[in-house]
Amino acid sequence: MTLPGKVAIREVALRDGLQIEEPIPLSAKLELLAAIAATGVREVEVTSFVSPTKVPALADAAELAAELWRYPDTEFSALVASPGGAARAVAAGLTSIEYVVCASDAFSTANVGRSSAEATAAIADIAGIAHDAGATVEVIIATAWDCPFDGPTAPRRVIDIAAKATEFGVDRLAIADTIGTTTPRRVTELIAAVRPIIGGIPLGAHFHNTRGAGLASAYAAVSAGITRLDSSAGGLGGCPFAPGATGNIATEDLVYLLHDCGVETGIDLQAAIGAAQVAGSVVGHGLPSALLAAGDRKRD
Amino acid sequence: MTLPGKVAIREVALRDGLQIEEPIPLSAKLELLAAIAATGVREVEVTSFVSPTKVPALADAAELAAELWRYPDTEFSALVASPGGAARAVAAGLTSIEYVVCASDAFSTANVGRSSAEATAAIADIAGIAHDAGATVEVIIATAWDCPFDGPTAPRRVIDIAAKATEFGVDRLAIADTIGTTTPRRVTELIAAVRPIIGGIPLGAHFHNTRGAGLASAYAAVSAGITRLDSSAGGLGGCPFAPGATGNIATEDLVYLLHDCGVETGIDLQAAIGAAQVAGSVVGHGLPSALLAAGDRKRD
Repeated sequence: MTLPGKVAIREVALRDGLQIEEPIPLSAKLELLAAIAATGVREVEVTSFVSPTKVPALADAAELAAELWRYPDTEFSALVASPGGAARAVAAGLTSIEYVVCASDAFSTANVGRSSAEATAAIADIAGIAHDAGATVEVIIATAWDCPFDGPTAPRRVIDIAAKATEFGVDRLAIADTIGTTTPRRVTELIAAVRPIIGGIPLGAHFHNTRGAGLASAYAAVSAGITRLDSSAGGLGGCPFAPGATGNIATEDLVYLLHDCGVETGIDLQAAIGAAQVAGSVVGHGLPSALLAAGDRKRD
Repeated sequence: MTLPGKVAIREVALRDGLQIEEPIPLSAKLELLAAIAATGVREVEVTSFVSPTKVPALADAAELAAELWRYPDTEFSALVASPGGAARAVAAGLTSIEYVVCASDAFSTANVGRSSAEATAAIADIAGIAHDAGATVEVIIATAWDCPFDGPTAPRRVIDIAAKATEFGVDRLAIADTIGTTTPRRVTELIAAVRPIIGGIPLGAHFHNTRGAGLASAYAAVSAGITRLDSSAGGLGGCPFAPGATGNIATEDLVYLLHDCGVETGIDLQAAIGAAQVAGSVVGHGLPSALLAAGDRKRD
């Protein structure tokens, strides 16, 4: 097993982290964004262009997008769930679009009112909208391992979506453990199943720490050659299907682990702990990050 | 990479979990022990025979030991730090002794007032006391990766202690990440360095989740062939060098991960979550376990 020398982390606190929080002011988001930018992270998922009534915490997507010119060295992405959302995102100036397709039908229907196959078919339209605007598009395959309604997701469903996305010319793919249930062996197996059918398209992974296995799964993914991972400052982001449980893996915990394993991220660990402190401050409650409580390894 | 079919978990909530807590009554320990025994775990580290002024929470070691006959199918062990402690442990009826040797001098001196070499030399006496009483002895090499005072521990120090312990005829060995700083790559490397020099002696590993990497490290250990792991109900057990930080990996989180990876433990997950609830109840505060908050994976 050889680890990659470098992994690109995408910071998702501003989108996946905030989406089930009570809405916070734009000024607080800008404060968090400044702290995140100071960590050295190069990719930031900054908001989503979805229904403001469904996700009120991200209703200010266009206003936030209008502030992003302040960080010319950062690649900002926004999540969309429909062609209409993609159109709004590119109109707001986003040049990197993420389109979520749920691999399970029950989750897809609950989330966006479409079956998984219908959501998959819309990839072509969304890729067209993005590419026509000069933007890139990434398809994130959600509930890639388990669905809270349908149970385990058959790998074949993920493979079929990845094949369609490849056929439709997407620029990147990711597989997401939406409800935080997967573990290293299934991570390794799904990556091995998906990679051969997507050609040279970069594949990322998105883990939640809901059952404590998020970092173990992330390490398994990196060991399997994945060099793109999502994480959230402070571990911000709950799990709507497990109230009180943790959500996204924490950026600073992931950075600590990767650096200690000799894998570079370009992120400054102390600055990442600082961003986690800001994340906790803007939402006004404790966060599950381990580094936030323990600090970096040091001599006393 | 082939995972073992089965891993033996040793439940350490009653010793490592409780040792830095405020002392709780013997009756509360027996309540927790009953919940732990109900999980199906076969090995339980139940107390330590050390200075009651240094570790007041475990001052009732002999009284607790007198209750263990109630669980004839469980193997109980107790931790000791000196030949005198070993003598007290076997006098109290313990048939499995754990002797901790710190690989770093500063930690060894702070902990037991002896250098690492002096503590290593005492293995012979302690093995003699245990074996004369018909008990087994395990040497746990503490601060095996990092010391809070000396910084990173040279692998050579761990190897030398393991070699001495092997020469002195100990029955088992374990390597412990005492302050919760190691990560998978260093776990894999140290196991690869230690195993060739200890012959057929079983090697276990003990991880803390202080920097969030505990389960990732445990998975790395199992991937490297380790089939003995310590964990604590609810993740009970703090880190004296990082106030407020988490300590031991949680038994139920470890069981979830291992079972999901196809590795059996003989532990019932729901009963383990129940034991974690009892652990939280007897200490009267929240515990960091992920499963305690999120529950097992299930269909809603």
